[in-house]
Amino acid sequence: MVSSATYFALVEDDLEQLSENLVQLVGAKNPVLAKAAEYLFKAGGKHLRPALVMLAARATALDGEPTARHRRLAEITEMIHTASLVHDDVIDRASLRRQQPTVNALFGDKAAVLAGDFLFAKSSIYLARLRNLEVVELLSTIIDHFAEGEIRQMQQAFDPDLTFEDYLLKNFYKTGSLIANSCRAAAVLSEVSESQCQSLYDYGQHLGAAFQLVDDLLDFTATTETLGKPVASDLASGHMTAPVLYALVEYPELRGLIESQFEEPGSFEESLVLIHRSHGVEQTMTLAQSYAQRARFALEALPPSPARHALMEVTDYVLERVY
Amino acid sequence: MVSSATYFALVEDDLEQLSENLVQLVGAKNPVLAKAAEYLFKAGGKHLRPALVMLAARATALDGEPTARHRRLAEITEMIHTASLVHDDVIDRASLRRQQPTVNALFGDKAAVLAGDFLFAKSSIYLARLRNLEVVELLSTIIDHFAEGEIRQMQQAFDPDLTFEDYLLKNFYKTGSLIANSCRAAAVLSEVSESQCQSLYDYGQHLGAAFQLVDDLLDFTATTETLGKPVASDLASGHMTAPVLYALVEYPELRGLIESQFEEPGSFEESLVLIHRSHGVEQTMTLAQSYAQRARFALEALPPSPARHALMEVTDYVLERVY
Repeated sequence: MVSSATYFALVEDDLEQLSENLVQLVGAKNPVLAKAAEYLFKAGGKHLRPALVMLAARATALDGEPTARHRRLAEITEMIHTASLVHDDVIDRASLRRQQPTVNALFGDKAAVLAGDFLFAKSSIYLARLRNLEVVELLSTIIDHFAEGEIRQMQQAFDPDLTFEDYLLKNFYKTGSLIANSCRAAAVLSEVSESQCQSLYDYGQHLGAAFQLVDDLLDFTATTETLGKPVASDLASGHMTAPVLYALVEYPELRGLIESQFEEPGSFEESLVLIHRSHGVEQTMTLAQSYAQRARFALEALPPSPARHALMEVTDYVLERVY
Repeated sequence: MVSSATYFALVEDDLEQLSENLVQLVGAKNPVLAKAAEYLFKAGGKHLRPALVMLAARATALDGEPTARHRRLAEITEMIHTASLVHDDVIDRASLRRQQPTVNALFGDKAAVLAGDFLFAKSSIYLARLRNLEVVELLSTIIDHFAEGEIRQMQQAFDPDLTFEDYLLKNFYKTGSLIANSCRAAAVLSEVSESQCQSLYDYGQHLGAAFQLVDDLLDFTATTETLGKPVASDLASGHMTAPVLYALVEYPELRGLIESQFEEPGSFEESLVLIHRSHGVEQTMTLAQSYAQRARFALEALPPSPARHALMEVTDYVLERVY
């Protein structure tokens, strides 16, 4: 298994600075918000998204050295991602994430709505100050897609007729868009050719797809301890993920259990047994591998560099992560 | 009393088109959101903010005719304002606004968080598409200030030591900033001189101050029916508004009642009696009049036009409105 240390080595210092900066950028005017910021940015997050932005910056920057604008972009990306998580947890009434209580669980829904709005607001003002119209549009697209993804997820809940295509599109809106658009934005700030910008967008899109597929299968295969939240909580919320959609083909009796929203005692457990008995988890992994392969392929358009090599390695990390 | 029809006549068609466009721009992909959009944009709102943007556009545009970009700016402004109201009502647990149930009351907190995020997201993508860096920064500032204002309001709750200066600053963040920055943005899109841009900013800032002061006194003087929400609900939430701050000077015994957060039965009613017995409401009105005067003065830098005249009239409307 590839240790995350391998690809993180290149951006380790970047990420350390990022955590410090984020707490400072968000400010500490309110004790609850200061605590939330500290908690969100310093406690155990993998910082995968800003790491990718910094690697994309290093893979495209003139002398391989990211600029202050690249760093700010990474910070903005993490702010948007964190804001979306905070509101996500309010919407899903989640009480655990990364083995920690959520902001809504700790401080209440009211503070969580406010904290998320505050992070979105800060990201929007720092984004404007980057003074690059294309980057503004790319990052605004992320926020738009995130909301679109949340709505689709709500509409798709407990719907066994969901098509695989609609499921993947929702994943793109919720996960892939952020990685694709922020990696592209890093290349835009480096002022490289359109083909290099596009290759980083494609990389991010495919890596995001692989990442989300693995996330969706971990909901069934990981333990509560490694997952940091209850096992199969996605299924309990009615999210029709890849393992469920594949299992539905093998065990059509799942359909009725899902449509009943697991109201019958034992029906949730019965569904879990059917999903585990099916080849859904394996098939999901196979699909994730094919997206990871496409992500690696997209990087071919970039000149070889330590950063490009690290971006390649991330595709393995995404497939092999266990939480 | 100046009828709102006077100043609205110039922008009546603009506003009718705006309501239609907003429902369409926000999209109708989700039944709950479509209902919320219809409800928010068509039902009884005064559309004061987009009316001001359209008047600022007409007062500065080359031939007095607003452009498609001006219209889009007005729509974005109303989206941001509406998103802030929706989240505001979740945070304040409000169940009534404009005599109508709030989105959270009708559809639940979950849908209200999502609807607000969706509106912020849409405003951010349409803003990026205006492709004007200064306008992006002005409108991002609004979103940033709104969140800042919410936090200050939370911190200031039930604090009888709040200074008048901090109260007015919070009002600027919550109300004045949106009007000031959106009016300035209209002038920026008209490509007029910096002094004209600044005069519309100053106008918006002072008008916003007057508007909020009147809003804060109406909480005490209007009836539930005209107010569209319970009387003195600001006080009940612990908001230290101008009438309360003035009354505290005359009746220091209010301090203890406020600090106890009205936990003692009858203490809320007792506070209301003291505030009404004080000159707080009159003094608030006097201050609002002085801000309205400053708003009119700021308009002197603009060339005379029907739109400038209408903007002058709005300052009277703001002082004379009863809900």
